[in-house]
Amino acid sequence: MVGGGSGSFIGAVHRNAAWIDGAFELTAGAFSSNPERSKTSGAELGIAPERVYSSYREMIEIESQMDPEERIHAVAIVTPNHVHFEPAMMALEHGFHVIIDKPIAFDVDEAVKLRDKVNETGNILGLTHTYTGYPMIKEARHRIAAGEIGALRKIFVEYPQGWLSTFLEKDGHKQASWRTDPSRSGAGGSVGDIGTHAANLAEYLSGLMITEICAELNIVVDGRLLDDDASALLHFENGVTGVLIATQVAAGVENNLSIRVYGEHGGFEWSHTDPNTLIHRRNEGPDQILRAGTEYLCEDAQRATRLPAGHPEGYIEAFANIYLEIARAIRDHEEMGYKDGEYDFPGAEDGVRGMAFVQTMIESARSKEKWTPFQLP
Amino acid sequence: MVGGGSGSFIGAVHRNAAWIDGAFELTAGAFSSNPERSKTSGAELGIAPERVYSSYREMIEIESQMDPEERIHAVAIVTPNHVHFEPAMMALEHGFHVIIDKPIAFDVDEAVKLRDKVNETGNILGLTHTYTGYPMIKEARHRIAAGEIGALRKIFVEYPQGWLSTFLEKDGHKQASWRTDPSRSGAGGSVGDIGTHAANLAEYLSGLMITEICAELNIVVDGRLLDDDASALLHFENGVTGVLIATQVAAGVENNLSIRVYGEHGGFEWSHTDPNTLIHRRNEGPDQILRAGTEYLCEDAQRATRLPAGHPEGYIEAFANIYLEIARAIRDHEEMGYKDGEYDFPGAEDGVRGMAFVQTMIESARSKEKWTPFQLP
Amino acid sequence: MVGGGSGSFIGAVHRNAAWIDGAFELTAGAFSSNPERSKTSGAELGIAPERVYSSYREMIEIESQMDPEERIHAVAIVTPNHVHFEPAMMALEHGFHVIIDKPIAFDVDEAVKLRDKVNETGNILGLTHTYTGYPMIKEARHRIAAGEIGALRKIFVEYPQGWLSTFLEKDGHKQASWRTDPSRSGAGGSVGDIGTHAANLAEYLSGLMITEICAELNIVVDGRLLDDDASALLHFENGVTGVLIATQVAAGVENNLSIRVYGEHGGFEWSHTDPNTLIHRRNEGPDQILRAGTEYLCEDAQRATRLPAGHPEGYIEAFANIYLEIARAIRDHEEMGYKDGEYDFPGAEDGVRGMAFVQTMIESARSKEKWTPFQLP
Amino acid sequence: MVGGGSGSFIGAVHRNAAWIDGAFELTAGAFSSNPERSKTSGAELGIAPERVYSSYREMIEIESQMDPEERIHAVAIVTPNHVHFEPAMMALEHGFHVIIDKPIAFDVDEAVKLRDKVNETGNILGLTHTYTGYPMIKEARHRIAAGEIGALRKIFVEYPQGWLSTFLEKDGHKQASWRTDPSRSGAGGSVGDIGTHAANLAEYLSGLMITEICAELNIVVDGRLLDDDASALLHFENGVTGVLIATQVAAGVENNLSIRVYGEHGGFEWSHTDPNTLIHRRNEGPDQILRAGTEYLCEDAQRATRLPAGHPEGYIEAFANIYLEIARAIRDHEEMGYKDGEYDFPGAEDGVRGMAFVQTMIESARSKEKWTPFQLP
Repeated sequence: MVGGGSGSFIGAVHRNAAWIDGAFELTAGAFSSNPERSKTSGAELGIAPERVYSSYREMIEIESQMDPEERIHAVAIVTPNHVHFEPAMMALEHGFHVIIDKPIAFDVDEAVKLRDKVNETGNILGLTHTYTGYPMIKEARHRIAAGEIGALRKIFVEYPQGWLSTFLEKDGHKQASWRTDPSRSGAGGSVGDIGTHAANLAEYLSGLMITEICAELNIVVDGRLLDDDASALLHFENGVTGVLIATQVAAGVENNLSIRVYGEHGGFEWSHTDPNTLIHRRNEGPDQILRAGTEYLCEDAQRATRLPAGHPEGYIEAFANIYLEIARAIRDHEEMGYKDGEYDFPGAEDGVRGMAFVQTMIESARSKEKWTPFQLP
Repeated sequence: MVGGGSGSFIGAVHRNAAWIDGAFELTAGAFSSNPERSKTSGAELGIAPERVYSSYREMIEIESQMDPEERIHAVAIVTPNHVHFEPAMMALEHGFHVIIDKPIAFDVDEAVKLRDKVNETGNILGLTHTYTGYPMIKEARHRIAAGEIGALRKIFVEYPQGWLSTFLEKDGHKQASWRTDPSRSGAGGSVGDIGTHAANLAEYLSGLMITEICAELNIVVDGRLLDDDASALLHFENGVTGVLIATQVAAGVENNLSIRVYGEHGGFEWSHTDPNTLIHRRNEGPDQILRAGTEYLCEDAQRATRLPAGHPEGYIEAFANIYLEIARAIRDHEEMGYKDGEYDFPGAEDGVRGMAFVQTMIESARSKEKWTPFQLP
Repeated sequence: MVGGGSGSFIGAVHRNAAWIDGAFELTAGAFSSNPERSKTSGAELGIAPERVYSSYREMIEIESQMDPEERIHAVAIVTPNHVHFEPAMMALEHGFHVIIDKPIAFDVDEAVKLRDKVNETGNILGLTHTYTGYPMIKEARHRIAAGEIGALRKIFVEYPQGWLSTFLEKDGHKQASWRTDPSRSGAGGSVGDIGTHAANLAEYLSGLMITEICAELNIVVDGRLLDDDASALLHFENGVTGVLIATQVAAGVENNLSIRVYGEHGGFEWSHTDPNTLIHRRNEGPDQILRAGTEYLCEDAQRATRLPAGHPEGYIEAFANIYLEIARAIRDHEEMGYKDGEYDFPGAEDGVRGMAFVQTMIESARSKEKWTPFQLP
Repeated sequence: MVGGGSGSFIGAVHRNAAWIDGAFELTAGAFSSNPERSKTSGAELGIAPERVYSSYREMIEIESQMDPEERIHAVAIVTPNHVHFEPAMMALEHGFHVIIDKPIAFDVDEAVKLRDKVNETGNILGLTHTYTGYPMIKEARHRIAAGEIGALRKIFVEYPQGWLSTFLEKDGHKQASWRTDPSRSGAGGSVGDIGTHAANLAEYLSGLMITEICAELNIVVDGRLLDDDASALLHFENGVTGVLIATQVAAGVENNLSIRVYGEHGGFEWSHTDPNTLIHRRNEGPDQILRAGTEYLCEDAQRATRLPAGHPEGYIEAFANIYLEIARAIRDHEEMGYKDGEYDFPGAEDGVRGMAFVQTMIESARSKEKWTPFQLP
């Protein structure tokens, strides 16, 4: 693990997710750019002291020279965005698989280089777009692909939060500070932090790619350096249209990602406030309540649940579903059975799309033209 | 009453609303452009045969010559949009008050003329933007005006329906036919039918006027002649921004108008699916559930409820709240006590804004420029 | 109308319900036992002064001698329980139909006499067990009767309120005072006021009668004279068992009647907090959300809705559905077309059952035996 | 681990719960009474082959002779109820700590012996009454203890499930078979399987013990050998009364444990369908929505959450909270710092109460007397 020392939010989540199913063991780490803090964090985590490193460079170099039976298999990178690229590149080049928290990198350039490196090395790179790990998201995706609601027409996706309603970073609030700092977060604020989740979810669920964007980005809180509020009209493939909202100044709102997709015959509605439920709206006949853990779900959704219906699973479990798929891919890779396209986790290509999304949103927000094309580099 | 014969949806609602509190009696009507059908409808409604007229012209002329104690006081116009202007003008000119279902008229020109006639005659014109009649909307408006959530920042309003997901008008579906016909509905489809409700609600609740619009209108169902899907980014006064969705092709969705408004310290969330509840999100401390019929509500909200908390009131009651306010205004008018600005119901000015909203949405949708100013004629 | 003067809760509801559909006109009344107050209330309601009476006796006598075309058709009795019997008997004896707010009378004896009088005179007596007027209750009843969930097994009905959590009657709170006073309310407090609603709803929905009761009644608030809290295990016909809760000391709870009925293959769940929704639980396949105003509902449920799905109807509309059925029965009666069993509203027989329920609950609560048989007099 | 081989439900949950926070490692096991199956399960779990045992006896004996640094610290027993007592006794006697799935044993006698053994050895015994692990349960308990809703009055607890609505055990359904078999489950069916959870939760939350029970137990499904449906009126200490429902034939219902507790000034309502929310009903002022992961929660609730508000945690996390507390107790025990009463997890005493609850429910159900005292052996 790179990053994720004491006080880290997402580092702890990665560990919970890696551990809950026994899919990974944490055996080494460079938990902080401060060697002392890395040491302390490693000790707290029960890591053997000789494998707590003072930098990721040290870790990757030393581990890569260890006996294959002993050394780490994959590197999980849970640092702020500006420290994604280098450790990821280095890990890939030294033969390690990589798990990165989203967004994949600081900008499009870095993302493209990482993707190319992945293609070149054949190593695995997993990107933790958590929300695609929820079973009911997989169920909706399956049913949409099977044509259950006919040709798609509308996609509404929104990700409102309220935690940045005040000028938190002024007083050094750890999470707020780096996320609102262009030198650590990249060119996008809310659009990178949560907008990429929303866009990724919309594309994953619908199977349709965004083609054009008409966006507005705002800095709502005085003094802030990056957008804390984003909204956009969207064009998808096949003439489908939609709306995306990603705001961090919806005061009092927690973390309410939701998506609604409508086709000719009905729609699917999912909200992170009740993630084990998927509402199936229907033009004719009563709406249905689809539930995690039931027998009528598709195979992918079933594989993504641990418990029978009525035993709620949450964010860590969704996260862990991505870890499980990555673990499966790594195992296959090590056993020479890896087959492209067989695994259900976001990867380098999604990472590139994410960075391109941020860039296109920013371009569109600056443009007087209504529509800005979404082009992949 | 003009229109509202057998099979009419909104005519029956107007009657329920007028009757529920005993605020109005229905004593005369021209219920259909077909005199026979008017007669039958009048009989069904128990109207004295001599006061069931074969046209609104006849009704207004004859009634205006009757003894003031006997004749009607107000004309409720519940016809399709293209038959709003003429009966309304004629009624105002003959000294009657007018209640019109929204939108006020066929286009901006007609709306302006009606407003001018209202100002000239001093008669009352009420416009049934139903949703402003809900007590919890009045409560939210009151608390926002009192600064409870600080300066406003974001307004999300959406009005999704699914009933036009298929080409209903092809087979002569009564409601669908006129609403999708430019010669009866006007230049706007969904944007006029439900978009005006959403825009009106946003302005009513927030106290802020829309200043610029970036819209997309779509005809989703093949063969349809008017937009059945609208979305827009919005600029309001005071730098507030927002998003508006008004679609009639969200297949399987009923009639789910909802509005969320966020300020510096919190937000208010209201949905038509549970209209007696208002959620108060807060930056600090637990969110609150504000409920209709409770003692802690403001005076306007209390006046708009008939029952103690836990006894749900619905659409007809909200409608009736508008009728009650109009009745109060008419009574004051007749007793020479009418005071401008004392009554809480939408009127001619709102009607003009509504028509201008439709026109601006259409202009913006046709423009390649991102923003189109919202200007009142 | 007997009772229902200014400040009355249920009197106003009866008027709203009678008026909303234009089913009844209010033309005469004895609105208070205080003749002055009756006069004032009558004037406020726009009743002709000569038909505002100083007592129900006067009203019934004078009206019964009027021309049949002019006089009242039915008497609505909305007084406290101890003033149900006499006006009802007198009205029936003078040839009027009767509408009584529940419970039908002060005790079982009175109820039986009223039932016998109804049978003897052939006049109509309607009892406003409001909750049976909701369309989704009718839908559940229809589907259960049609065997959709198989043989019934369990019935859970509860009616929690919190408004009597404090000793309101001490300070003369109008509603609390008579409801907690044995001389006006009868032998039951919560069990009569809301328990009868719950029991009636359970029997109406399931089509099964209660046969045995194991009850506990409590006076929770110090100083109160009647039970404010009731719970019971229930035996129904066909070996079905259940639980009933009726409490008025669930502090902070509004008026949350709910019922859940389960059979071999599924269940139906309805709550007054969202009365336009009926959840259909299913052993196999996804649960369904049945909604008022949709086309797939049974005829009875359709007749009990005024609006398309998504336009909420509430308590007054449910109340009005009972009024509409009574009006239909009265019309048929007057036109000699009345057919027993053709109408869907609670009547004298339900009234007797209600009073017997109160008495059985009290007996059981006093008994050390577990089960007390529910016997109809 | 004893039990929990392939196909086990609760065994997997125990592992997820033990792993998610890195609190325990799984290093040895007797995963099945069938040695072959134990071996296979051990291999699947990555356990060193020499520490996969063919019986718990073998495991406990061999492990107890290993070097203290190497051997297991605690034994998790996840077998059917009739195989709780022996391995637990043996483990305690050999110096191991014990974690048992509830109910603690087969009957009261066994439970008492286990409790006595715990007291005698000073070893730790944790009982996984999962639902007490939820943060919002801890919050409600804290606020009740702090007097926030005044003296308690009513407790409604219910645990409806529907999965035993059909005669599943007939066809050898694994979970159904042992749970409905008196020789493996004990004298109680639903009352033991889920009723004990409900009773434990009610006592934990309220801080009040059940003193008297008036119960009905039913075998609803023909051919079944144990009760599948239980309901009871309850008396608690301090004159508090309540109702308990525990049924497994509420067809279509998942696993909807819920509890509502009311006091003089308000109430708390919690449902397992939305476990991260606690509703605070209030006599005066708006109700409040208390949410997991917020800053205003008590220390115990904060310690029981891993994620900020809006990131749902579920059943495994609640389970893991119990494991974390047990781990803390074990660590303190090993470091000689164990202090009785400092840890927040159910133990042997709760186990005895649970078995006594089952026995009292059965006695009461058989009795013609209304009330049966709840007495602890």
